[in-house]
Amino acid sequence: MMNNFDLNSYLSSKRKQINKALGSIFADDSSKIVKAMKYSLMAGGKRIRSVLCMAAAEAVGGQNKDIIRAACALEMIHTYSLIHDDLPAMDNDKLRRGIPTCHIAFDEATAILAGDALLTLSFEFLSSTGSSQGNRSLEWIHVMHIIAKAAGYKGMIEGQMQDMAAEGNRLRLEDLEKMHALKTGALIEASVIAGAILGKGSDVQIQNLKTYSRNIGLAFQVTDDILNVEGDPNIMGKDAGSDQLRAKSTYPGILGLESSREFAKKLVKDALKALENFDNKANPLRAIAHYIIERKK
Amino acid sequence: MMNNFDLNSYLSSKRKQINKALGSIFADDSSKIVKAMKYSLMAGGKRIRSVLCMAAAEAVGGQNKDIIRAACALEMIHTYSLIHDDLPAMDNDKLRRGIPTCHIAFDEATAILAGDALLTLSFEFLSSTGSSQGNRSLEWIHVMHIIAKAAGYKGMIEGQMQDMAAEGNRLRLEDLEKMHALKTGALIEASVIAGAILGKGSDVQIQNLKTYSRNIGLAFQVTDDILNVEGDPNIMGKDAGSDQLRAKSTYPGILGLESSREFAKKLVKDALKALENFDNKANPLRAIAHYIIERKK
Repeated sequence: MMNNFDLNSYLSSKRKQINKALGSIFADDSSKIVKAMKYSLMAGGKRIRSVLCMAAAEAVGGQNKDIIRAACALEMIHTYSLIHDDLPAMDNDKLRRGIPTCHIAFDEATAILAGDALLTLSFEFLSSTGSSQGNRSLEWIHVMHIIAKAAGYKGMIEGQMQDMAAEGNRLRLEDLEKMHALKTGALIEASVIAGAILGKGSDVQIQNLKTYSRNIGLAFQVTDDILNVEGDPNIMGKDAGSDQLRAKSTYPGILGLESSREFAKKLVKDALKALENFDNKANPLRAIAHYIIERKK
Repeated sequence: MMNNFDLNSYLSSKRKQINKALGSIFADDSSKIVKAMKYSLMAGGKRIRSVLCMAAAEAVGGQNKDIIRAACALEMIHTYSLIHDDLPAMDNDKLRRGIPTCHIAFDEATAILAGDALLTLSFEFLSSTGSSQGNRSLEWIHVMHIIAKAAGYKGMIEGQMQDMAAEGNRLRLEDLEKMHALKTGALIEASVIAGAILGKGSDVQIQNLKTYSRNIGLAFQVTDDILNVEGDPNIMGKDAGSDQLRAKSTYPGILGLESSREFAKKLVKDALKALENFDNKANPLRAIAHYIIERKK
């Protein structure tokens, strides 16, 4: 079933689409705040969240030409979270995606405000449906609510709080899992569900996609931890081994490398199982699940 | 016309309503992030933005029992902006509303995230209309869009950027006005317009309320500058004279105290003129315009 699906072309075409949309947001980038926002937004991420959103809409057979707006909003939220996480008061990272972090390239105040501005802009985007979308406005409000909740103090932000609190402590496996479910899992799940809602998926489909996204979200994190141990810094654009340096709890640290790899594989298997009632329109989602644990960065 | 209107009772009743709503948001405040959000949110502000939002809805004769949600969202955005402005990388303020600022009471990372979380929660609130509000979802999307735009990189955030860039420089009057229009004016205007839209005001009414809000927004700032020179620190809950210490451009600095007072009075007069076609349901807005330049903190 998967043999004929070319994920590389798919990812590259989606990324081109999302990068084009993101790149065309700022007509005038003469102000410092726009320069900083653009700098981090266009620093070349994997665009996993936006691709998942669009792929989920396709999986439920939905057509929504405005879905690109949700995809852009998700990348803005993800980028804002990276800018703030990198700040001196938090992870104090100087390098991200192979280039200086926002507060290094600009300054700390600008980085804080650029993050704030990207978060705010994401909701400006989500609410710019206009009257032509009048009949779909309930869907958009629903999507906004799901994304805001996932990004907020019961989701991503609480995850970052737990991550910081855990530094230097040895977490139990279940606490590590809970932290990741919040820190990265919540927004990944919201990305998939947003796509499914905008694509007019059924309740059963949405339920299955929730299971799919929870599994790949965690698999994504386990793989990140593995790459942090054994990844090639030249490919990753950041230093390997930084987790150990910071005494962060990781899957390889708790389970060992081999069991971590097995765990990631099992999560992907469970993710694929959740898609068993979907037809081949879900092939991109299936391929992404494999990609998530096979990637090198 | 104004003689029979008791602004103090009005403000105190509205504030009670908004504080009750804000205070009941967090059922469980055992987490550090919730403690920090609540600490700053409930530190007792003037609640000007939320009161303006509700008063504008009343002025156009609108009934919307859910308007309290927009009012809460506005206070969250205002509070988030104060938390971030107070950070060491920005204004480095240690005292706000008479108590230690968020990053002093907690720590810098928590303050950054508490601000992020309040901003995010504001959009969770604005998008929680639910299906009972299905027929009003277009209004809510419109309101969200207006608020997001006002709070974003073309509004409040650009204002803070300009404010920081101006420190130590002598601004021309028009640049000072532009900066304030963005930094405080944009969200005040959005508060009034949000209320007018949710109250189902006509286009003409909304246009007039825009004029009203621009004038009181600026009057508010001019008065803040005056209070910073001659206010009583015990009443204000912060030090007087801090603007001068930081070599900030202010209205009293450029125009002198007496002309600044005259300017604020003229702005209020223009604000009241914009309300001349409104009936006595706009009396709260009229009284607020007077209050804005007569307040002592």
